[in-house]
Amino acid sequence: MTRTDRTQVAIVGGGPAGLLLSHLLHLEGIESVVLEHRSQDHVQSRLRAGVLEQGTVDTLRDAGLGAGMAARGMPQTAIDFRFGRRSHLIDFTHETGGRQVMVYPQHEVVTDLIRARLEAGGQVWFDTPVTQLDDLTTSRPVVHYEVDGEPHQLRCDIVAGCDGFRGLSREAMPADARTSYDRIYPFAWLGILAEVPPAAPTVTWGCHESGFAMLSFRSSTVSRLYLQCAPDDKPENWSDDRIWHTLHERLDVDDMPPLIEGRITQKGVTGMRSFLSEPMQHGRLFLAGDAAHIVPPTGAKGLNAAVADIRVLSRGILDFYRRASTDVLDQYSALCLERMWLVQRFSAGLCTMVHQFPGQGAFERRLQRADLDTLTGTHAGRLAFSENFTGLPYAI
Amino acid sequence: MTRTDRTQVAIVGGGPAGLLLSHLLHLEGIESVVLEHRSQDHVQSRLRAGVLEQGTVDTLRDAGLGAGMAARGMPQTAIDFRFGRRSHLIDFTHETGGRQVMVYPQHEVVTDLIRARLEAGGQVWFDTPVTQLDDLTTSRPVVHYEVDGEPHQLRCDIVAGCDGFRGLSREAMPADARTSYDRIYPFAWLGILAEVPPAAPTVTWGCHESGFAMLSFRSSTVSRLYLQCAPDDKPENWSDDRIWHTLHERLDVDDMPPLIEGRITQKGVTGMRSFLSEPMQHGRLFLAGDAAHIVPPTGAKGLNAAVADIRVLSRGILDFYRRASTDVLDQYSALCLERMWLVQRFSAGLCTMVHQFPGQGAFERRLQRADLDTLTGTHAGRLAFSENFTGLPYAI
Repeated sequence: MTRTDRTQVAIVGGGPAGLLLSHLLHLEGIESVVLEHRSQDHVQSRLRAGVLEQGTVDTLRDAGLGAGMAARGMPQTAIDFRFGRRSHLIDFTHETGGRQVMVYPQHEVVTDLIRARLEAGGQVWFDTPVTQLDDLTTSRPVVHYEVDGEPHQLRCDIVAGCDGFRGLSREAMPADARTSYDRIYPFAWLGILAEVPPAAPTVTWGCHESGFAMLSFRSSTVSRLYLQCAPDDKPENWSDDRIWHTLHERLDVDDMPPLIEGRITQKGVTGMRSFLSEPMQHGRLFLAGDAAHIVPPTGAKGLNAAVADIRVLSRGILDFYRRASTDVLDQYSALCLERMWLVQRFSAGLCTMVHQFPGQGAFERRLQRADLDTLTGTHAGRLAFSENFTGLPYAI
Repeated sequence: MTRTDRTQVAIVGGGPAGLLLSHLLHLEGIESVVLEHRSQDHVQSRLRAGVLEQGTVDTLRDAGLGAGMAARGMPQTAIDFRFGRRSHLIDFTHETGGRQVMVYPQHEVVTDLIRARLEAGGQVWFDTPVTQLDDLTTSRPVVHYEVDGEPHQLRCDIVAGCDGFRGLSREAMPADARTSYDRIYPFAWLGILAEVPPAAPTVTWGCHESGFAMLSFRSSTVSRLYLQCAPDDKPENWSDDRIWHTLHERLDVDDMPPLIEGRITQKGVTGMRSFLSEPMQHGRLFLAGDAAHIVPPTGAKGLNAAVADIRVLSRGILDFYRRASTDVLDQYSALCLERMWLVQRFSAGLCTMVHQFPGQGAFERRLQRADLDTLTGTHAGRLAFSENFTGLPYAI
């Protein structure tokens, strides 16, 4: 493969944020290169959450990426909170006057994006680690990368840092020019895939005194299940028997059919943190998605927050080339963060409401229950949840 | 004074809960005696919060106690949250389709109640400490009390424990028959009275990085102001200059007139806790108000929660005598607590949202700000606040 040494937008990281940006820019005739450290196989098989907000679905559809969702996505209109041995349904589509979410796994989104980029002759360079970003405060930034251990350079006008929480883009900003906010939660999730039809047609959250559990799905024959575990837990601590016993305890209620057990094909532990770094820009470098912010998976906001960033960034880049205006780019961080702090609030609040905290007092437990009663039992509670869960308005 | 040694309902404590119960029972022709440790002067001059929910106002009016409120009460339709150097008004009357609150100080409510009881020849015994409650699980409980150091007894059918957080009624329940929930907040309020017209026509909350402050009023010429201080702070640590400086810092914003200063006539420090003891009944003893639960003053729910209890208790006692039914009395605790846990949730949540916590991290501060933005900037946020602030529905 012959690699160019010059592009308009260099995109560090080939996850959903970077690939979507590249695709949206392509639709507007703007050149980009995506540099991805990992292999194509690895990127397409990375297991992540899979609940898309209405706005994420619309954004992907409007960009011509709706075919996979139409074929395999599972639209959702309600969510089931289970506590006090009963099911409490929030019909968020009713509450919001028609907004839905879509269960469609992140690796499917990534696969759709990669296919679209490659079919259009897009430059997506896998197995290509970026080693350094230079000249970010000039009009000609340089991206240093390696191929087979050999150093190369890519010159560009703009760098998009879409390389996730552990990527180097954020670190390329001077330490004294950014502020970090961080919270580590004292628990994790054990996630499993099971070959079993979902026991319920809706995503179901079990808020039990012994801990949180969740039932979601991948298809009509594969369930995705999670359960709260210790932060340093290991999959090997969890036998299949123990997993099913715990899931039954936390998800089964008196007024709904019990979970259906099936063969467990995958187990993994995910840590839980809230993180945000501001500002999200420095010179010609713009961070998007996990590179700038992490939310706990409760609320399923990670991918959706990345899409919200990319909407602003792609519009800013478009204005930069088409209208020679930096108005949006100059405001990029502020535009993203105003919404993002509300997303952080929702994700952290929900995480705190549904999990059991080690050493939590009796008063806090009762307030948690009152929170759940208010969330599901009042119009204002259901409305607030529904507006957040289906997706807050975009800045752009 | 000749004191009876037999009544239908013995009421321990002559605060708003006990006096209102005695008044409501009297209207139904049921006899009671109120035993109050303190003098009449002391009870009528105790300074407390003074925001009455719509339902509290209605309850007092329906009981013929509306004259003082009509003459001196100040109906409120909105509250002003100040943060980020701007005013954010929540029009709770609009949000709830017409519900108001009334600024009318607690000592006025108590004075109205005492006058009504005494004019009707009611038995309100001041300077009368209760020393012991006996035979609570029989049909003939005994209240032991003292007059001038001499022991006396009052026999009754039912005992109402309305003697506040430090009263003996709660302790008269066996320790193994009750569960306590308690949270002490790491700050207090310095409350002042100032001879100055209120700078704003609405109760105003200043949520500032240096701490919380509040502007309320007693009349068109007297302001009631609070500011967050250390839990072990003393009024003498606060010079008038320091008080006004701090109040300006926390309450003044760019889009509203500044505070008006005036002569400070009273200063006092109030601690802040959440407390609840359940169940609220044992045999023929029924706790109401602060004897069973304390909320932090943020949200102004203390007196209103007591009125909610008394509505249930008076109805239960009425059914007991008129219909020989204990259905409501048997469910007294459950009926009160279902609502009370939601009141605890609202009060604790608001307290946490508006105060600065010592050692609070940067992430928590930003979430607090996102909470305030959501509270004032979204329909669901304003609605949830308004429904709680004007008063949740009663069990009875």
